[in-house]
Amino acid sequence: MQSREVHLVSRPEGLPSDDCFEIVEVELPAPSAGEVTVRNRYLSVDPYMRGRMRDIESYSPPYELGMVMHGAAVGEVVASEHADFATGDLVSSNFGWREGYTASAATLSKLPDDADRPSYYLGVLGMPGLTAYAGTLDVGRVAEGETFFVSGAAGAVGSTAGQVARMHGCRVIGSAGSDEKVAWLLDELGFDAAFNYRTSDLDAALAEAAPDGVDVYFDNVGYDHLQAALERMNPYGRVAACGSISGYNATDPRPGPSNLSTIVGKRVTIQGFIVSDYADRRPQFLSDMRRWLGEGEVRTRETFLDGIDHAVEAFRGLFDGSNAGKMVVRLDA
Amino acid sequence: MQSREVHLVSRPEGLPSDDCFEIVEVELPAPSAGEVTVRNRYLSVDPYMRGRMRDIESYSPPYELGMVMHGAAVGEVVASEHADFATGDLVSSNFGWREGYTASAATLSKLPDDADRPSYYLGVLGMPGLTAYAGTLDVGRVAEGETFFVSGAAGAVGSTAGQVARMHGCRVIGSAGSDEKVAWLLDELGFDAAFNYRTSDLDAALAEAAPDGVDVYFDNVGYDHLQAALERMNPYGRVAACGSISGYNATDPRPGPSNLSTIVGKRVTIQGFIVSDYADRRPQFLSDMRRWLGEGEVRTRETFLDGIDHAVEAFRGLFDGSNAGKMVVRLDA
Repeated sequence: MQSREVHLVSRPEGLPSDDCFEIVEVELPAPSAGEVTVRNRYLSVDPYMRGRMRDIESYSPPYELGMVMHGAAVGEVVASEHADFATGDLVSSNFGWREGYTASAATLSKLPDDADRPSYYLGVLGMPGLTAYAGTLDVGRVAEGETFFVSGAAGAVGSTAGQVARMHGCRVIGSAGSDEKVAWLLDELGFDAAFNYRTSDLDAALAEAAPDGVDVYFDNVGYDHLQAALERMNPYGRVAACGSISGYNATDPRPGPSNLSTIVGKRVTIQGFIVSDYADRRPQFLSDMRRWLGEGEVRTRETFLDGIDHAVEAFRGLFDGSNAGKMVVRLDA
Repeated sequence: MQSREVHLVSRPEGLPSDDCFEIVEVELPAPSAGEVTVRNRYLSVDPYMRGRMRDIESYSPPYELGMVMHGAAVGEVVASEHADFATGDLVSSNFGWREGYTASAATLSKLPDDADRPSYYLGVLGMPGLTAYAGTLDVGRVAEGETFFVSGAAGAVGSTAGQVARMHGCRVIGSAGSDEKVAWLLDELGFDAAFNYRTSDLDAALAEAAPDGVDVYFDNVGYDHLQAALERMNPYGRVAACGSISGYNATDPRPGPSNLSTIVGKRVTIQGFIVSDYADRRPQFLSDMRRWLGEGEVRTRETFLDGIDHAVEAFRGLFDGSNAGKMVVRLDA
């Protein structure tokens, strides 16, 4: 079987351009004992990948130049030399942007037999979903009656976080980058308030949306959003610091919020977190989220780009808001 | 009895100038039933007072114009109409910058009979001491073997925090504003490393002092100190955000640290706190701190200015580092 895969060949400055990547065609070996060969159906593009393109040690090691862009993918077993894996089984891997691979079955997770939307395991039932779940419940520690604000609210993480908070009795406010996304949050996801940060004064819009202040801020954006949220935070407020996408492609250091000192008087806690620390929450998360999806209590949407040659474009789309909900590269169209 | 008291008469811009204050002479009434008359011996000047000079709602209400500068003071009962208070008893109050007052005994705390250094109840045994204790133990959650960094390390709060951390098994690093203060931290207080931030490159000095990174940062200064500390923070590090004195007199908003987003990957928690939330820790704090002082395990020092007409000057001194340890206005010289 032939497979094309996307390699990082140079480190981007600013928004990653096409010439930082190369599509390479490889021949997959047949599986040895204990291995399977998988044809991927869905590849994930996620904002955190921008950090791994830098040559800086962080919680994930930097991508090596000349290597495949690793990340989550869902595919179908096409050949198996492992007793627990049969042809046709759906599996998720972390082998990233490639059409297929042969690998030890031990490195893969089988999707449940009733996974009727396999791509959800890259989004609302995958890493972004668990990020939203743990960030809202374990880091944000939302309580009934509190006001919850999430930025990047129409994204894979934000849209899930807002709905988790709503289901725990919060008044939920979201910011998003288009009127269409705002309408989706309000009309489909049950947000109590939402605004388009591109066409609003952020401070004024948040003040109007949160007349009683903000108790928990789920930060996907950073910078001006964090500043506006801190300005509105209530005493003992919590900030679940998930990411700061508005700075990921910055080439110069950007100053942080000028009102950070307000956290003292307001006793605000700002807690950075990453999803891998909450692996023990996965069973409960999957049980809850599958039930909520089934009952229509949580809704999600996906934006598909077709073909591995659009993986880089899909990734770039995360930064200009091309995605509504989870951005997915679809290989089985 | 005559008493002079310091009133705030206009709201300062920048460093408070003399003309924002007025010294007013008043005649104290004789105590009614349940009241005492107190002659103050020591008045406290503390950085948080700068915040209360602004007309902004915060955890403490703003000082009203034309009213006494409230704050901690220690004095001696000179007349009593309350059975539990006798002439000569030492009491602490929160009535601020005045030579004396007549007030309900119920609003006062009697100092222990063995309080041989009454002014300590404005510093190491008072609000600054409890701030240091709770900030280090409850907010910073220091653990044996960790590296603890405190800015403003020669001040009333910082010097105590560093010693509390040292007594809990931390390697302790401090920054201070003079070589003399640095020597005091190293030679008298048992700090493991210290540097003069006025004559050092902050990032380089901290990197050298903390080769294994920083686990807990006790922030009294904010801004460039916070940025440098975040840069050196270890995974799961904690920032006990106590204050940001370097910005208290700023007339324009100052940008925050440009590296705030590093808290995500490092899972750092930044927690603002104020001492009044830790009132239940006071008995344990007093017991521990009095013992440590008695054993010479914790040391402290005080800078006295004599006379209420120097209260404003003493207060301003907090911002240029005139104080070594706790700054106190002494009235009984």
